[in-house]
Amino acid sequence: MTEFFGLPTLTGMQMPTGVHTLVRRTHEERVMRALQENGAMSRGELARVVGLSRTTLSEITGSLLQRGAIVVVDTDASSRAGSGRPAERLALDPASAQFMGVDFGHRRVHVAIADASHEIMASDSVRYDDTASWPTRTELALGLIDRLSAEAGVHFGALQGIGIGVPGPYPAPEGTAWSRAAAGKTVLRPAPEGVDVAFAERFDAPLIVDNNTRLAALAEAITGADSVADLVYVRLSDGVGGGLVVGGQLVTGSTGLAGELGHVTVEPAGRPCRCGKRGCLETVASVPGILAACWEFGLRLESLQDLAAAVAGAHPVADRVLREAAGALGRVVGAATMTLNPAKVVIGGDIARLAPVIVEQVAATLAGELFPIAPAGPVVEAARLSDDDGALGALAAVFHSSPLLARYPETAEVKGGSGARTSTTEGAVHVRP
Amino acid sequence: MTEFFGLPTLTGMQMPTGVHTLVRRTHEERVMRALQENGAMSRGELARVVGLSRTTLSEITGSLLQRGAIVVVDTDASSRAGSGRPAERLALDPASAQFMGVDFGHRRVHVAIADASHEIMASDSVRYDDTASWPTRTELALGLIDRLSAEAGVHFGALQGIGIGVPGPYPAPEGTAWSRAAAGKTVLRPAPEGVDVAFAERFDAPLIVDNNTRLAALAEAITGADSVADLVYVRLSDGVGGGLVVGGQLVTGSTGLAGELGHVTVEPAGRPCRCGKRGCLETVASVPGILAACWEFGLRLESLQDLAAAVAGAHPVADRVLREAAGALGRVVGAATMTLNPAKVVIGGDIARLAPVIVEQVAATLAGELFPIAPAGPVVEAARLSDDDGALGALAAVFHSSPLLARYPETAEVKGGSGARTSTTEGAVHVRP
Repeated sequence: MTEFFGLPTLTGMQMPTGVHTLVRRTHEERVMRALQENGAMSRGELARVVGLSRTTLSEITGSLLQRGAIVVVDTDASSRAGSGRPAERLALDPASAQFMGVDFGHRRVHVAIADASHEIMASDSVRYDDTASWPTRTELALGLIDRLSAEAGVHFGALQGIGIGVPGPYPAPEGTAWSRAAAGKTVLRPAPEGVDVAFAERFDAPLIVDNNTRLAALAEAITGADSVADLVYVRLSDGVGGGLVVGGQLVTGSTGLAGELGHVTVEPAGRPCRCGKRGCLETVASVPGILAACWEFGLRLESLQDLAAAVAGAHPVADRVLREAAGALGRVVGAATMTLNPAKVVIGGDIARLAPVIVEQVAATLAGELFPIAPAGPVVEAARLSDDDGALGALAAVFHSSPLLARYPETAEVKGGSGARTSTTEGAVHVRP
Repeated sequence: MTEFFGLPTLTGMQMPTGVHTLVRRTHEERVMRALQENGAMSRGELARVVGLSRTTLSEITGSLLQRGAIVVVDTDASSRAGSGRPAERLALDPASAQFMGVDFGHRRVHVAIADASHEIMASDSVRYDDTASWPTRTELALGLIDRLSAEAGVHFGALQGIGIGVPGPYPAPEGTAWSRAAAGKTVLRPAPEGVDVAFAERFDAPLIVDNNTRLAALAEAITGADSVADLVYVRLSDGVGGGLVVGGQLVTGSTGLAGELGHVTVEPAGRPCRCGKRGCLETVASVPGILAACWEFGLRLESLQDLAAAVAGAHPVADRVLREAAGALGRVVGAATMTLNPAKVVIGGDIARLAPVIVEQVAATLAGELFPIAPAGPVVEAARLSDDDGALGALAAVFHSSPLLARYPETAEVKGGSGARTSTTEGAVHVRP
């Protein structure tokens, strides 16, 4: 277990550890940031702007040129006032991918590739059967990356980081490395069946692997003009997952299981849950749980689309079932809010957008749980990123781990993809020095 | 609002900010640590041990001597092998206080003063009426410090930090600086009525002010051989308060209200709570709530002592009421555990020690809430520090803020005071670089 800028990563991969490497990466990022903001610049101009010596700057630009992150575009011969040898002007290589986000869902993998300015250069997904093995899923992902790379003319010579989201939780079988590690309280399980190893063999860049719901929570926290440092995220889909951002950091918990709001008991005598308990929030607020409750009241819906139609038609059974589910969700979120005092509560999953009554009811139930005398409670809203935007969560984790973004949430941002999410990130709080 | 080693502190005080100051303080701590571990040393020996140049070391020792943190004890003339001028040997001044913890309770203030090795040099408390004004409480605290200083022959010339715990939460009145700040989501309210200012005027040392329950949570996390980075703490007394340690950090929340587990609703139609809601955990699990429930079942107890006697006599009503209160507490802690996945749950307050049934029942209820398939849940235990040890929580916050202790929980420790709490701190997790 080593550390990559504060986030745990897995062993067996090349990754930049140590102060020297961190400093070098910080210099590289500052150089690239300067080129992004100012366009083409000479080495002399760069050295002044980023405050490095000419010698150090030459080392940095040499490495970046060699890896293809930047290119020589011209010389300053035409604009130059004085005499002497014209200086080369450097610019970002528009074909150089800097960050990659990969989101493995139950039935598709989504890949997004971003440049130095965090703009999405290429993005797509590939479907697979939910019984597909992890080697198959990994192969499909790598094939998708090859195709995106060829189509968009993108290269990975200067890749700064890869974020990989996997479904969770994956309690490890007895006797595995993870279960042994968990006994000693080491956090974060390995990616399923070598996903991490396959990416590490293929790309020379640090990896961050985490639960995709947790990564989505981070993406919601740093996305938009009102980025926050304390956020509770719950996603309603086939199951109910969650993620927490506390003081600007993703929370993993002592054995990697933090954020499992879907398995808080809401009905002690309720339906059996796939986790082995009864009456978990997931049994009433997941899409299958909501559909089952509609059936109990005689409304025979088969799918999320049917439910959306019933909501659009203001069907009273659908409304009642959704309000009850959201009421249970609101009580769980209410307890989490009293515990964590977040600035924002985000309800993810397509159903939260299809049925606005969910967010309304969660906000109403939550309001009854807050201190009557305290400052205003958290903002409650539907997720900005859709379930198909999973790779943006993984990208967010990589952006977040970047040394230049250490003062997150002031500077972190996610651009591009579906929906409006360019960020100016005002009102940041809890920033650690 | 400025920052002191990652913890927010209040404005208007002298405090070391900036890299230069941080580096100087780190050097000072390393020098003092070396003297603590090795006894008296010459400047040359010190320079070798801490890896500083002779010039830098002379600056550091000059400042420490001037402030009285260290003293010249002798020269190495007798043990010296070679010729030349004998070198002075330096040692810690045993009379120099390095850290101070102050805990303002509802009815007493507790002060503890520690030396460079975190040993308690002096400690005592003074009682006041719970209607005493904050200026009165502050004056009593400063008088107590004067007395302790005189009796123990302690001086404060080299004080490195003061931790101050105050009861909470204190929602700020409308229009105050804090309520304005809270609207902008700045954390941490000021200490009540100028406590912070009074200490800042009196001592030339950085201050940390926080809710005393939260400081107790930190002290529990870093105390003992099994220090943890993720902890949920609940204290049962006149009210029910709580504190969270997540990833080794105290959690304040977006408006300073994190950890208020006592105000999670457990009985929607229950008794009115002083917070303005109904059926909060506090109404059933605080000492007054437990006594009231005993009365309802015909067991007329007046005080915690009466309750302890009923527990000692195995009174069935007391047992039943305590189990029900602990069951409610267990459900709240269970939800917090599913949310945060802590390594340890600590139940504080004298009642948790007087009535072991509480911890037993919380553990039993909590066990039913955990994933059946996941690695073992958190340790559940009664607090190691008593309510009278409040100042140790405040001390823990100051130790924790020290640059040398930044790799908490590996190195942090609290020694002395009541109970066994010398720490060797193995098995640390979630350490951030």
